[in-house]
Amino acid sequence: MTESVQHLPDILPNILIEPLVKAALLEDLGRAGDITTDAVIPAALTAQAAIVAREAGTIAGTRAAELAFRLLDPPTACEIPAPDGSRVSPGKVVMQIEGRARALLSAERTALNFLGRLSGVATATAALVQAVEGYGVGITCTRKTTPGLRALEKAAVRAGGGANHRFGLDDAVLIKDNHIALAGSIAEAVRRVRQRIGHLVKIEVEVDTLRQLEEAMAVSPDAVLLDNMTPKQLEQAVAMVRGRATTEASGRIDLETAPVIAATGVNLLSVGWLTHSSRSLDLGLDMAQA
Amino acid sequence: MTESVQHLPDILPNILIEPLVKAALLEDLGRAGDITTDAVIPAALTAQAAIVAREAGTIAGTRAAELAFRLLDPPTACEIPAPDGSRVSPGKVVMQIEGRARALLSAERTALNFLGRLSGVATATAALVQAVEGYGVGITCTRKTTPGLRALEKAAVRAGGGANHRFGLDDAVLIKDNHIALAGSIAEAVRRVRQRIGHLVKIEVEVDTLRQLEEAMAVSPDAVLLDNMTPKQLEQAVAMVRGRATTEASGRIDLETAPVIAATGVNLLSVGWLTHSSRSLDLGLDMAQA
Amino acid sequence: MTESVQHLPDILPNILIEPLVKAALLEDLGRAGDITTDAVIPAALTAQAAIVAREAGTIAGTRAAELAFRLLDPPTACEIPAPDGSRVSPGKVVMQIEGRARALLSAERTALNFLGRLSGVATATAALVQAVEGYGVGITCTRKTTPGLRALEKAAVRAGGGANHRFGLDDAVLIKDNHIALAGSIAEAVRRVRQRIGHLVKIEVEVDTLRQLEEAMAVSPDAVLLDNMTPKQLEQAVAMVRGRATTEASGRIDLETAPVIAATGVNLLSVGWLTHSSRSLDLGLDMAQA
Amino acid sequence: MTESVQHLPDILPNILIEPLVKAALLEDLGRAGDITTDAVIPAALTAQAAIVAREAGTIAGTRAAELAFRLLDPPTACEIPAPDGSRVSPGKVVMQIEGRARALLSAERTALNFLGRLSGVATATAALVQAVEGYGVGITCTRKTTPGLRALEKAAVRAGGGANHRFGLDDAVLIKDNHIALAGSIAEAVRRVRQRIGHLVKIEVEVDTLRQLEEAMAVSPDAVLLDNMTPKQLEQAVAMVRGRATTEASGRIDLETAPVIAATGVNLLSVGWLTHSSRSLDLGLDMAQA
Amino acid sequence: MTESVQHLPDILPNILIEPLVKAALLEDLGRAGDITTDAVIPAALTAQAAIVAREAGTIAGTRAAELAFRLLDPPTACEIPAPDGSRVSPGKVVMQIEGRARALLSAERTALNFLGRLSGVATATAALVQAVEGYGVGITCTRKTTPGLRALEKAAVRAGGGANHRFGLDDAVLIKDNHIALAGSIAEAVRRVRQRIGHLVKIEVEVDTLRQLEEAMAVSPDAVLLDNMTPKQLEQAVAMVRGRATTEASGRIDLETAPVIAATGVNLLSVGWLTHSSRSLDLGLDMAQA
Amino acid sequence: MTESVQHLPDILPNILIEPLVKAALLEDLGRAGDITTDAVIPAALTAQAAIVAREAGTIAGTRAAELAFRLLDPPTACEIPAPDGSRVSPGKVVMQIEGRARALLSAERTALNFLGRLSGVATATAALVQAVEGYGVGITCTRKTTPGLRALEKAAVRAGGGANHRFGLDDAVLIKDNHIALAGSIAEAVRRVRQRIGHLVKIEVEVDTLRQLEEAMAVSPDAVLLDNMTPKQLEQAVAMVRGRATTEASGRIDLETAPVIAATGVNLLSVGWLTHSSRSLDLGLDMAQA
Repeated sequence: MTESVQHLPDILPNILIEPLVKAALLEDLGRAGDITTDAVIPAALTAQAAIVAREAGTIAGTRAAELAFRLLDPPTACEIPAPDGSRVSPGKVVMQIEGRARALLSAERTALNFLGRLSGVATATAALVQAVEGYGVGITCTRKTTPGLRALEKAAVRAGGGANHRFGLDDAVLIKDNHIALAGSIAEAVRRVRQRIGHLVKIEVEVDTLRQLEEAMAVSPDAVLLDNMTPKQLEQAVAMVRGRATTEASGRIDLETAPVIAATGVNLLSVGWLTHSSRSLDLGLDMAQA
Repeated sequence: MTESVQHLPDILPNILIEPLVKAALLEDLGRAGDITTDAVIPAALTAQAAIVAREAGTIAGTRAAELAFRLLDPPTACEIPAPDGSRVSPGKVVMQIEGRARALLSAERTALNFLGRLSGVATATAALVQAVEGYGVGITCTRKTTPGLRALEKAAVRAGGGANHRFGLDDAVLIKDNHIALAGSIAEAVRRVRQRIGHLVKIEVEVDTLRQLEEAMAVSPDAVLLDNMTPKQLEQAVAMVRGRATTEASGRIDLETAPVIAATGVNLLSVGWLTHSSRSLDLGLDMAQA
Repeated sequence: MTESVQHLPDILPNILIEPLVKAALLEDLGRAGDITTDAVIPAALTAQAAIVAREAGTIAGTRAAELAFRLLDPPTACEIPAPDGSRVSPGKVVMQIEGRARALLSAERTALNFLGRLSGVATATAALVQAVEGYGVGITCTRKTTPGLRALEKAAVRAGGGANHRFGLDDAVLIKDNHIALAGSIAEAVRRVRQRIGHLVKIEVEVDTLRQLEEAMAVSPDAVLLDNMTPKQLEQAVAMVRGRATTEASGRIDLETAPVIAATGVNLLSVGWLTHSSRSLDLGLDMAQA
Repeated sequence: MTESVQHLPDILPNILIEPLVKAALLEDLGRAGDITTDAVIPAALTAQAAIVAREAGTIAGTRAAELAFRLLDPPTACEIPAPDGSRVSPGKVVMQIEGRARALLSAERTALNFLGRLSGVATATAALVQAVEGYGVGITCTRKTTPGLRALEKAAVRAGGGANHRFGLDDAVLIKDNHIALAGSIAEAVRRVRQRIGHLVKIEVEVDTLRQLEEAMAVSPDAVLLDNMTPKQLEQAVAMVRGRATTEASGRIDLETAPVIAATGVNLLSVGWLTHSSRSLDLGLDMAQA
Repeated sequence: MTESVQHLPDILPNILIEPLVKAALLEDLGRAGDITTDAVIPAALTAQAAIVAREAGTIAGTRAAELAFRLLDPPTACEIPAPDGSRVSPGKVVMQIEGRARALLSAERTALNFLGRLSGVATATAALVQAVEGYGVGITCTRKTTPGLRALEKAAVRAGGGANHRFGLDDAVLIKDNHIALAGSIAEAVRRVRQRIGHLVKIEVEVDTLRQLEEAMAVSPDAVLLDNMTPKQLEQAVAMVRGRATTEASGRIDLETAPVIAATGVNLLSVGWLTHSSRSLDLGLDMAQA
Repeated sequence: MTESVQHLPDILPNILIEPLVKAALLEDLGRAGDITTDAVIPAALTAQAAIVAREAGTIAGTRAAELAFRLLDPPTACEIPAPDGSRVSPGKVVMQIEGRARALLSAERTALNFLGRLSGVATATAALVQAVEGYGVGITCTRKTTPGLRALEKAAVRAGGGANHRFGLDDAVLIKDNHIALAGSIAEAVRRVRQRIGHLVKIEVEVDTLRQLEEAMAVSPDAVLLDNMTPKQLEQAVAMVRGRATTEASGRIDLETAPVIAATGVNLLSVGWLTHSSRSLDLGLDMAQA
């Protein structure tokens, strides 16, 4: 894990993040800009600030936070002692910023909104990863992400040590209950899909019962999503699959149930709430005149 | 409350919401669209679907959810038995949709992502509103919102019975600790602000101590933000202010502490976690062939 | 006034202005760019230019003008001897530019279009401010601005010594005749508004008669807009209000009538033509080979 | 003129105007929308409104005004008794609108801002056209237009009976003083241009003196811009050109000087202030409950 | 093939195509619109038109063409006798359009530019598919697509009976020579990739030699790209792979070499020129007054 | 020609090209970025690369290719030994790039897609220009360009030594068969056009027969487009026109027929396939660790 974590801070190029950070700044600046700061703080005044963790957690979103300051005032200098994927204790400095005081104050909330939310996702993921340590199971996220922030939230899941499910409707096939119902059978749905997709697209089938699983395995999917099964059913499912497909469990997975489900031998736990319901990590910005 | 609730479903015109919903759909559709659905479901097939609450809560975001379906296929018909602001029990139908099966399946996740998150905000707000019922205190949100979704989250707070703080840095003045430190004093900061702002802009000053409050009241702000004060301090603060400014308490407010703080007589409780840390409301989409 | 003028050149961050200047450049460059300049001027040639006032006035829009040159060729150097808010005499150099001759020639018209129009607004405002000097009255603008340029025109009004009315429909409440007619009464309209808005939003009521003013004052608005009243009526209005609300006069205000209306004791004169009908300030660009 | 006027209302397709009107609406609605109207006016209430001329003039911009209402609420019905190019007297109804009262009130200012400004341009143009009636001279505009609104302002000039100069730097060649200075001579500048441009691009040369005109005519431009010449010089210029190029006079042209300059026999009067300094036409919206 | 062809016309929802068609229309309309048509054709005149194949081929891009007309004038009616995937003979009517004559004339070139180019891609693909009929080999495209048009060109390849390779850098892994060189070995590159990617992402390795292939097969990729191998080497490669990975040949594939390469037993032929170098299909628009 | 070629690399300012290159990069990076490169290549590794011609041709699009690298990583250094308009032999280095290895690998395909396509257009143009050398005829392109890339393709035609026809529907008038049919006659169409257009817009009339040409010449157009005429008819046409208009031949022009048509004395050959059907120039990127 060490090595891939080293790579993480760089994997989303600025060209992908910048439009989101710019939109967030504009949303906050409105038409008239930061009227408080512009009135109170002289334009030439410079200052230093530190973003500090107020509680323990795993960091994500530092690039977005840095961009918030730099989009407002490009010469602003940022150092990041705790890059994405770092575990921090309360009081740890995550980012140090130096530049015009106006830019620091006006971008503060936008930077913290990104950093807090994404670190919250990373922290929740890391907790779950830790909860299943030793079981050889992976934690993966879903498409239940915040509208507009999917790429950042998926990166935050990776920063927390989790893995990514598909990024959208177009990069992998997931045949779900409604598809099966409307196609008539799993076999027919998979047949139709194989007519259309290219050779680099994987197919996963969602099943609720072992009977459906049997039907699915007959057409050799790359992965099966075992939805809302009991630990006992999951064990049987793993036995039926015999390593011929990736097994992924979903439904009612939390810090308590995760080890139990992990013990069934499934390859992955799929968890929606990492992205749709984790709370923000508490971070603050402390400022000092430069 | 009844009357304002009637107005709520309509207050954000589509011209404001549409870009957000379109961006979310495009984020999910990627370059190739919904490759599963396009392969499995015939283009002409129509279907009916219902979005159903899986737990109790307060609804928000129905307009965004409706738009998700209609942007993908304009003739899709939507009825909304539980518009924004409605309290729902588990099993309650929130929205009924009829149209092409492909559009229903492809827009489902985007619609639910908006509806779940925003209803989560509304539900958290409503719980807090209920917790302080009878105290004559209002619940208000902050700028700690999801980047890009501020307008929708502010509307969700209103749907839950809460009130809105400023929408950005430009529509009201909030003089915070760093402004005061860099200006030298509260009086000087307020003086500079009054030189710049128009007659329709209000001024709020954030204070941590009663001594600061005294300094603030000397320059007649419209509101004071009493940050991280004890209930006892808040009571004293309310007594000092004597109705000459709106009093707003912030810091460590949850369902348990809220009534205690409300009992101090402050006008408003300001709560960041309504928008940055509430969990999504659990909603599902049930489908049937038309 | 001196101090706030010092701040003005900086209050609209580039992130807010850049899209407007980019759009204006693209509008002028079309698909093929500046075909005259590209054919006639060698790519490597550098030049110096000065933007010079051809008549007396007050400057605004220098940041937009500077951006026009720098968006076309980022290394272009700009100095601004006469920043926003400066009063200039004919012949005064407002901006000095040095860079590639092509960029100077291609951006010239866009830069001058911004600078001329915005300086025109500032100049008209300054004339009106001067006309009422000594009366203790402020000059404020309206929402009758050029589509797309509101933030810049509001800043130009401030550069001319005026103040800003609300920036849009969302940052303050203004209850006008049609609202009153459809609500049934001023009291009912204000009651509905108070149900919805947050504690940092001010309420202004527009009235045509003293009778309406009485009705309005009964519900304690933050400001009253006294529309098309005679000086005599305005005097009575000021007396009725007794400082309990900001008083703002509108209608038929020009350089001649302004002192008369100012003498009535109203707090503000609201003037639409500053932004919708003032003429451009005459400025020219003089060029020399570097 | 009759026939071309018939065509005018249609020449800018909605796909070109819509982004401008949408941007103007969004600029006014901000993040929270029309908070006054949303609070005061029930969502279902419908109303009728009429846009009425408060002074005499020539109309332009009706399509933009119509779009303002329809972008906010698509079923809004608009009739346009006075389409672009119509001359109106005070009291004349320009546009009748029927639809939801909220949309009428929220779009009113945006619609009027477009209609007033563009009708102001058309009215100024029409006055100048009338001033030179009988001289066989045309009125043409320049690139001194409002940033972002060039296409609409050029259309307004046509609505007023004027003609359009080039729309940007790319659709025709205009060799100006700085080009000539940097190229060394008119002949050299024209030679370089002819090497680059296609066969459907015309060349105009700006000259200040008759000597320069002689130099220009030697290389057969399509048009000559006679800048700041006296009527006497213009007469001589026309005589020198002998119909071999279009002659266009610019500089110090107003309602008084125009006939004198027209009498010199030039083909066109080029007038920047039509677009950069004409005042808005006074129009109002009168509303009635439907 | 029949069944998947039925699905094709619908697989790219309008929300994905519309921005491209709108950009193309705006590129053609410029600032002033279609000045020829607007001057010559009365606004109310309606007409009928037919887009007709002038040579034999396979159609793609009908949805984009239809949108070109409808974006300019929404009520325009379009019928598509030859939807995407249809093989047409010279003279065959591909699309029938009825609406305002102006919209038909102004959108004609944009519609034909999309339809001609995309049908050219489909026709080239179909020719190659036909050339290898009976060999059980598929034809696939690459990322060598026209900037901005990838999704449409990939759909055109499907319309021609081909299959799609990955849509971008993010939906599948392709380890190429430079990756291998910088990582040190195929094994190391694959190891690093497996640390990062999710379970629904496939891995393909590009190899130039059989020795590299052996190295690649040792780490079990999902697919191997056999670049620039001779038919003999390809045969050996297929024998080495033994069905454990998809085999894809690339390099020097044209209508003549394709059957020879297909006969080696590889699964796929990867062909860049389908999208970067096929010529447009010749189509024309015939018009008649309605 | 030498001199204008020197100017070419600079004539499209970055502000025009950047949105196209950014869109192409985003299309390739998708939501997750270059997952192969990000996993395999350390973030800090730098490298050198050279873009090399694999076949002889004429270069165009170097600015777009350079931007692809620099938009991904601004400090990337680019040298361009073969700027737009250069003729290159196989093996010639067109561009040298040095920077972070990740940026080089991730931008490679986008850079080559622009460079290959645009150099293909330039190469085809140059071949045709050479084919008619000595005849005193020019080669011009049409509006049959790739949707979205018109400005770049027109510049590529210039880089190949050709000339540009109009850039869109708005910068010149071209009266075609359908316009004539709907107007009733060439004379009537031209009359209507002259009522509307400004003095810097040229008029071309398309004719199929000598009889139509006679009709056209009677109303003095600036140019005539002689469509699908035989060489004999073209000779007669040239004789009829007698230099009073530019003569432009179109239809069935290829490398073989071009000299024959050129020999008829027409001024220009108009060729659609330069932009809609020329194949990409083969270029490759060779990389070395820095």
